Amino acid sequence: MEQKANENLQKENRSGNDNIVFIGNKPLVNYIRGVIMQFLKKEASEVVIRSRGKFISKAVDVAEVSRRSLDDKKPVKIKAINIGSESFEAEGKRTNISTMDIVLGS
Amino acid sequence: MEQKANENLQKENRSGNDNIVFIGNKPLVNYIRGVIMQFLKKEASEVVIRSRGKFISKAVDVAEVSRRSLDDKKPVKIKAINIGSESFEAEGKRTNISTMDIVLGS
Repeated sequence: MEQKANENLQKENRSGNDNIVFIGNKPLVNYIRGVIMQFLKKEASEVVIRSRGKFISKAVDVAEVSRRSLDDKKPVKIKAINIGSESFEAEGKRTNISTMDIVLGS
Repeated sequence: MEQKANENLQKENRSGNDNIVFIGNKPLVNYIRGVIMQFLKKEASEVVIRSRGKFISKAVDVAEVSRRSLDDKKPVKIKAINIGSESFEAEGKRTNISTMDIVLGS
Protein backbone atom coordinates (compact mmCIF):
# COMPACT_ATOMS: atom_id res chain seq x y z
CA MET A 1 0.00 0.00 0.00
CA GLU A 2 2.79 2.35 0.98
CA GLN A 3 4.58 1.41 -2.26
CA LYS A 4 1.48 2.18 -4.29
CA ALA A 5 1.09 5.57 -2.68
CA ASN A 6 4.65 6.37 -3.61
CA GLU A 7 4.13 5.29 -7.18
CA ASN A 8 1.05 7.47 -7.39
CA LEU A 9 2.98 10.36 -5.99
CA GLN A 10 5.68 9.90 -8.58
CA LYS A 11 3.13 9.70 -11.34
CA GLU A 12 1.52 12.90 -10.15
CA ASN A 13 4.82 14.64 -10.02
CA ARG A 14 5.80 13.53 -13.50
CA SER A 15 2.56 14.50 -15.16
CA GLY A 16 1.91 17.48 -12.94
CA ASN A 17 -1.40 16.15 -11.66
CA ASP A 18 -3.66 13.63 -13.26
CA ASN A 19 -6.09 13.25 -10.37
CA ILE A 20 -8.52 15.61 -12.00
CA VAL A 21 -12.30 15.24 -11.86
CA PHE A 22 -14.01 17.31 -14.57
CA ILE A 23 -17.52 18.42 -13.65
CA GLY A 24 -20.17 18.14 -16.36
CA ASN A 25 -23.71 17.00 -17.06
CA LYS A 26 -23.70 13.71 -15.16
CA PRO A 27 -25.51 13.31 -11.83
CA LEU A 28 -23.78 14.84 -8.81
CA VAL A 29 -23.20 11.46 -7.18
CA ASN A 30 -21.01 10.27 -10.09
CA TYR A 31 -18.48 13.01 -9.42
CA ILE A 32 -18.61 12.56 -5.65
CA ARG A 33 -17.95 8.85 -6.14
CA GLY A 34 -15.08 9.76 -8.49
CA VAL A 35 -13.43 12.01 -5.92
CA ILE A 36 -13.85 9.51 -3.07
CA MET A 37 -12.47 6.69 -5.26
CA GLN A 38 -9.36 8.74 -6.04
CA PHE A 39 -8.65 9.19 -2.35
CA LEU A 40 -9.64 5.74 -1.04
CA LYS A 41 -8.92 3.31 -3.90
CA LYS A 42 -6.18 5.10 -5.80
CA GLU A 43 -4.67 6.56 -2.64
CA ALA A 44 -4.31 9.99 -4.17
CA SER A 45 -3.00 12.66 -1.83
CA GLU A 46 -4.62 15.39 -3.89
CA VAL A 47 -7.64 15.61 -6.19
CA VAL A 48 -8.49 18.58 -8.41
CA ILE A 49 -12.18 19.29 -9.07
CA ARG A 50 -12.23 21.26 -12.33
CA SER A 51 -15.25 23.16 -13.67
CA ARG A 52 -16.32 25.88 -16.08
CA GLY A 53 -19.34 28.16 -16.44
CA LYS A 54 -22.60 26.91 -14.98
CA PHE A 55 -20.92 23.76 -13.62
CA ILE A 56 -18.98 25.77 -11.05
CA SER A 57 -21.87 25.61 -8.53
CA LYS A 58 -21.98 21.86 -8.96
CA ALA A 59 -18.22 21.61 -8.39
CA VAL A 60 -18.60 23.30 -4.99
CA ASP A 61 -21.34 20.79 -4.09
CA VAL A 62 -19.05 17.92 -5.15
CA ALA A 63 -16.20 19.30 -3.02
CA GLU A 64 -18.39 19.84 0.03
CA VAL A 65 -20.19 16.49 -0.08
CA SER A 66 -16.95 14.58 -0.80
CA ARG A 67 -15.21 16.30 2.07
CA ARG A 68 -17.99 15.44 4.50
CA SER A 69 -18.17 11.84 3.25
CA LEU A 70 -14.45 11.31 3.66
CA ASP A 71 -14.38 12.81 7.15
CA ASP A 72 -14.61 9.48 9.01
CA LYS A 73 -12.37 7.54 6.59
CA LYS A 74 -9.64 9.83 5.32
CA PRO A 75 -10.15 13.46 6.28
CA VAL A 76 -9.29 15.88 3.50
CA LYS A 77 -9.36 19.64 3.37
CA ILE A 78 -9.61 22.33 0.77
CA LYS A 79 -6.01 23.13 -0.10
CA ALA A 80 -6.66 25.74 -2.78
CA ILE A 81 -9.40 27.30 -4.86
CA ASN A 82 -8.39 29.06 -8.06
CA ILE A 83 -10.70 30.94 -10.38
CA GLY A 84 -9.95 32.32 -13.80
CA SER A 85 -11.37 32.95 -17.25
CA GLU A 86 -11.01 31.32 -20.62
CA SER A 87 -11.55 33.36 -23.74
CA PHE A 88 -12.88 31.95 -26.99
CA GLU A 89 -14.47 33.00 -30.27
CA ALA A 90 -18.17 32.15 -30.63
CA GLU A 91 -20.35 33.33 -33.53
CA GLY A 92 -17.74 35.92 -34.41
CA LYS A 93 -17.73 37.35 -30.89
CA ARG A 94 -15.05 37.03 -28.22
CA THR A 95 -16.61 35.35 -25.18
CA ASN A 96 -15.23 34.67 -21.72
CA ILE A 97 -16.13 31.75 -19.54
CA SER A 98 -15.22 31.49 -15.86
CA THR A 99 -13.23 28.50 -14.64
CA MET A 100 -12.57 27.06 -11.20
CA ASP A 101 -10.19 24.47 -9.75
CA ILE A 102 -10.81 23.20 -6.23
CA VAL A 103 -7.87 21.25 -4.82
CA LEU A 104 -8.76 18.75 -2.11
CA GLY A 105 -5.92 17.13 -0.20
CA SER A 106 -5.21 14.99 2.84
CA MET B 1 -32.60 31.24 8.81
CA GLU B 2 -33.42 34.71 10.10
CA GLN B 3 -31.41 33.95 13.19
CA LYS B 4 -28.46 32.77 11.16
CA ALA B 5 -28.59 35.81 8.89
CA ASN B 6 -28.51 38.07 11.94
CA GLU B 7 -25.58 36.21 13.40
CA ASN B 8 -23.70 36.58 10.15
CA LEU B 9 -24.49 40.25 10.04
CA GLN B 10 -23.26 40.78 13.58
CA LYS B 11 -20.09 38.89 12.82
CA GLU B 12 -19.50 41.06 9.79
CA ASN B 13 -20.08 44.26 11.70
CA ARG B 14 -17.74 43.16 14.42
CA SER B 15 -15.03 42.37 11.92
CA GLY B 16 -15.52 45.74 10.25
CA ASN B 17 -16.39 44.47 6.81
CA ASP B 18 -19.74 45.50 5.45
CA ASN B 19 -18.66 45.66 1.83
CA ILE B 20 -20.60 42.58 0.89
CA VAL B 21 -22.31 42.00 -2.44
CA PHE B 22 -24.90 39.22 -2.22
CA ILE B 23 -25.45 37.43 -5.52
CA GLY B 24 -29.06 36.66 -6.46
CA ASN B 25 -31.56 36.77 -9.30
CA LYS B 26 -30.76 40.21 -10.72
CA PRO B 27 -28.84 40.63 -13.99
CA LEU B 28 -25.09 40.02 -13.80
CA VAL B 29 -24.28 43.64 -14.61
CA ASN B 30 -26.04 44.90 -11.46
CA TYR B 31 -23.63 42.98 -9.23
CA ILE B 32 -20.60 43.93 -11.31
CA ARG B 33 -21.61 47.58 -11.02
CA GLY B 34 -22.07 47.04 -7.26
CA VAL B 35 -18.55 45.68 -6.83
CA ILE B 36 -16.96 48.39 -8.98
CA MET B 37 -18.87 51.10 -7.09
CA GLN B 38 -17.61 49.79 -3.76
CA PHE B 39 -14.02 50.07 -4.93
CA LEU B 40 -14.21 53.32 -6.91
CA LYS B 41 -16.92 55.41 -5.21
CA LYS B 42 -16.84 54.09 -1.63
CA GLU B 43 -13.09 53.53 -1.76
CA ALA B 44 -13.36 50.09 -0.20
CA SER B 45 -10.10 48.19 0.11
CA GLU B 46 -11.93 44.88 0.16
CA VAL B 47 -15.23 43.59 -1.23
CA VAL B 48 -16.79 40.23 -0.42
CA ILE B 49 -18.89 38.55 -3.14
CA ARG B 50 -21.21 36.19 -1.27
CA SER B 51 -23.26 33.44 -2.90
CA ARG B 52 -25.15 30.23 -2.20
CA GLY B 53 -26.28 27.24 -4.28
CA LYS B 54 -26.85 27.86 -7.95
CA PHE B 55 -25.69 31.49 -7.66
CA ILE B 56 -22.11 30.40 -7.02
CA SER B 57 -21.32 30.20 -10.77
CA LYS B 58 -22.67 33.72 -11.20
CA ALA B 59 -20.51 34.95 -8.30
CA VAL B 60 -17.38 33.74 -10.08
CA ASP B 61 -18.48 35.60 -13.24
CA VAL B 62 -19.03 38.76 -11.16
CA ALA B 63 -15.58 38.44 -9.60
CA GLU B 64 -13.85 37.83 -12.92
CA VAL B 65 -15.59 40.58 -14.87
CA SER B 66 -15.19 43.10 -12.02
CA ARG B 67 -11.51 42.28 -11.72
CA ARG B 68 -10.95 42.78 -15.44
CA SER B 69 -12.98 46.01 -15.50
CA LEU B 70 -11.04 47.47 -12.59
CA ASP B 71 -7.67 46.58 -14.07
CA ASP B 72 -7.03 49.98 -15.66
CA LYS B 73 -8.54 52.04 -12.81
CA LYS B 74 -7.79 50.34 -9.52
CA PRO B 75 -6.30 46.87 -9.94
CA VAL B 76 -7.67 44.34 -7.48
CA LYS B 77 -6.88 40.69 -6.97
CA ILE B 78 -8.56 37.68 -5.46
CA LYS B 79 -7.44 37.67 -1.84
CA ALA B 80 -9.38 34.62 -0.67
CA ILE B 81 -12.04 32.16 -1.73
CA ASN B 82 -13.87 30.28 0.98
CA ILE B 83 -16.45 27.58 0.44
CA GLY B 84 -18.68 25.93 3.01
CA SER B 85 -22.14 24.51 3.63
CA GLU B 86 -25.23 25.69 5.41
CA SER B 87 -27.62 23.16 6.83
CA PHE B 88 -31.34 23.73 7.14
CA GLU B 89 -34.63 21.89 7.61
CA ALA B 90 -36.88 21.81 4.50
CA GLU B 91 -40.05 19.73 4.26
CA GLY B 92 -38.95 17.74 7.29
CA LYS B 93 -35.60 16.87 5.73
CA ARG B 94 -32.18 18.17 6.62
CA THR B 95 -30.73 19.81 3.53
CA ASN B 96 -27.31 21.27 2.84
CA ILE B 97 -26.57 24.16 0.57
CA SER B 98 -23.08 25.17 -0.58
CA THR B 99 -21.86 28.68 0.09
CA MET B 100 -18.97 30.73 -1.28
CA ASP B 101 -17.27 33.98 -0.37
CA ILE B 102 -14.87 35.55 -2.85
CA VAL B 103 -12.78 38.33 -1.32
CA LEU B 104 -11.49 40.91 -3.80
CA GLY B 105 -8.98 43.43 -2.56
CA SER B 106 -6.61 46.08 -3.79
